[in-house]
Amino acid sequence: MSMDRLIERIIELKNPTVAGLDPKLDYIPDFIKEYVVAEYGNTMQAAAKALFHFNKGLIKALCDVVPAIKPQCAYYEMYGFYGMEALHDTIAYAKENGMYVITDGKRNDIGTTMQAYATAHLGETQLFDGKKAAAFDGDALTVNGYLGSDGIKPLLDICKTYDKGIFALVKTSNPSSGELQDRLLDGKPVYEVMGEMCEQWGEEQRGKYGYSSVGAVVGATYPEQLTTLREKLPHTFFLVPGYGAQGGGAKDVAGAFKDGIGAVVNSSRGIMCAYQKMGMDGRDYAQAARLEAIRMRDDINSVL
Amino acid sequence: MSMDRLIERIIELKNPTVAGLDPKLDYIPDFIKEYVVAEYGNTMQAAAKALFHFNKGLIKALCDVVPAIKPQCAYYEMYGFYGMEALHDTIAYAKENGMYVITDGKRNDIGTTMQAYATAHLGETQLFDGKKAAAFDGDALTVNGYLGSDGIKPLLDICKTYDKGIFALVKTSNPSSGELQDRLLDGKPVYEVMGEMCEQWGEEQRGKYGYSSVGAVVGATYPEQLTTLREKLPHTFFLVPGYGAQGGGAKDVAGAFKDGIGAVVNSSRGIMCAYQKMGMDGRDYAQAARLEAIRMRDDINSVL
Repeated sequence: MSMDRLIERIIELKNPTVAGLDPKLDYIPDFIKEYVVAEYGNTMQAAAKALFHFNKGLIKALCDVVPAIKPQCAYYEMYGFYGMEALHDTIAYAKENGMYVITDGKRNDIGTTMQAYATAHLGETQLFDGKKAAAFDGDALTVNGYLGSDGIKPLLDICKTYDKGIFALVKTSNPSSGELQDRLLDGKPVYEVMGEMCEQWGEEQRGKYGYSSVGAVVGATYPEQLTTLREKLPHTFFLVPGYGAQGGGAKDVAGAFKDGIGAVVNSSRGIMCAYQKMGMDGRDYAQAARLEAIRMRDDINSVL
Repeated sequence: MSMDRLIERIIELKNPTVAGLDPKLDYIPDFIKEYVVAEYGNTMQAAAKALFHFNKGLIKALCDVVPAIKPQCAYYEMYGFYGMEALHDTIAYAKENGMYVITDGKRNDIGTTMQAYATAHLGETQLFDGKKAAAFDGDALTVNGYLGSDGIKPLLDICKTYDKGIFALVKTSNPSSGELQDRLLDGKPVYEVMGEMCEQWGEEQRGKYGYSSVGAVVGATYPEQLTTLREKLPHTFFLVPGYGAQGGGAKDVAGAFKDGIGAVVNSSRGIMCAYQKMGMDGRDYAQAARLEAIRMRDDINSVL
């Protein structure tokens, strides 16, 4: 079970966190930028290569401290197909180094189209004469359930076949998330209805820790809802964004856990830009990221 | 105004339809598959090249009949970064041939991440030393508004700067769309609340036909809701999936229009696979697609 693999790595490293790899060029140290421009010119390809070089350093420095990475597709798509190559290479490199990969794409569609997304990110693509090959091959994918079960069912089959997981958006960490998600449906907020759907969708794919292959995204910036949802969704593992740069602290995420498991907390900018915040030289960015990852691990463990 | 450009092309060709380019290998005639395998082997690259060759033929045959194409990202992502190159090349080729391009990605996220998606699909990406370049460069992008205004505002700025548009999911065409979208929020269905948000988001970007740069996706398979929404959302242009293969007919989409404009109706499989349905040789797939596009145009015009 995919979620079991994530949980076991969390237990092994005593660290329920995930490093978000959302590399903007502004975050990347000059020495990498100078190298790629010298090699590939001032091009889309150079920018994409810079993302991958940056990520490689982070992965190498983090892989024995942090169990998982979460690359955010948008930052790769921005550099066109070269950017998508960087996403592919990042996922492959992280897996080679023993990390669990949550591809953050928030993909959503229906039927055969959702099946195509599931195939792209978690499964294998049919080529010619029965040959198959994996396109991006993450361990889990974030998805948006607005379209209902038709959008989720094609994922469940692929999760089962390829031992993968998904995280559906339930209560997102942004200020305007309440505009729709907090509104009441027969007395229940939309996010709770969505959370109940996650429990249902995952019903037949529960692992040995009791969590299913259908997880939920619940923001650290809404600690009360996080605590309520933890109680109401006992088989749904949480991916928790919003720690650090977005304002959530260790106390805010404590409610996401039960008996020390149940969630993985994301930090992106906090880790990627640690060298800037610490006033360190760009050449030490990976070391700075490792220090911040250890600080974050200890911070979160202190409330569990 | 981006939506004006689409409307003018619709008026010029007297055709309120869009050809969905969701190319699966099964749809692609043997002569193309044989060519790409001979050239690139049994590889991801060959499959991606097959998509582009197939699309090129369709675009050439359709561009003086159909105003727009709608490539569905999922079918390109499935072939990894080579697939994304095929998406890029398809968009560029359609624009060269005067077509309006709606990239169907149903992207969604918040703040700077949504900005990255908007940049990827509608804007220009920052490279080095102030240089910029467009990554995918469609004319419009489909988006999912589950995260609220924080997910839409970054798009509005880019729509304004680059003269682009978006289509937010309101009432999707699939059978399970009602699980969330039809539920009542203070007596109003979720899809209506989402539709009202579209009106608000587009308020400051209305074109000369009265429609804003924020359109809505409303399925042909729910004709009553389509008619109601047309009345309630007078400034929101509709992208209507579900005609043909999904079961919607010309009468079902009539309610999406007012005075002959207001919507663009999509057909994907109906057009792409016309040669199979007509029992024609694979080499004539583009001609068959053109015949089907003309039939669809006349069918829809007959009820306007």
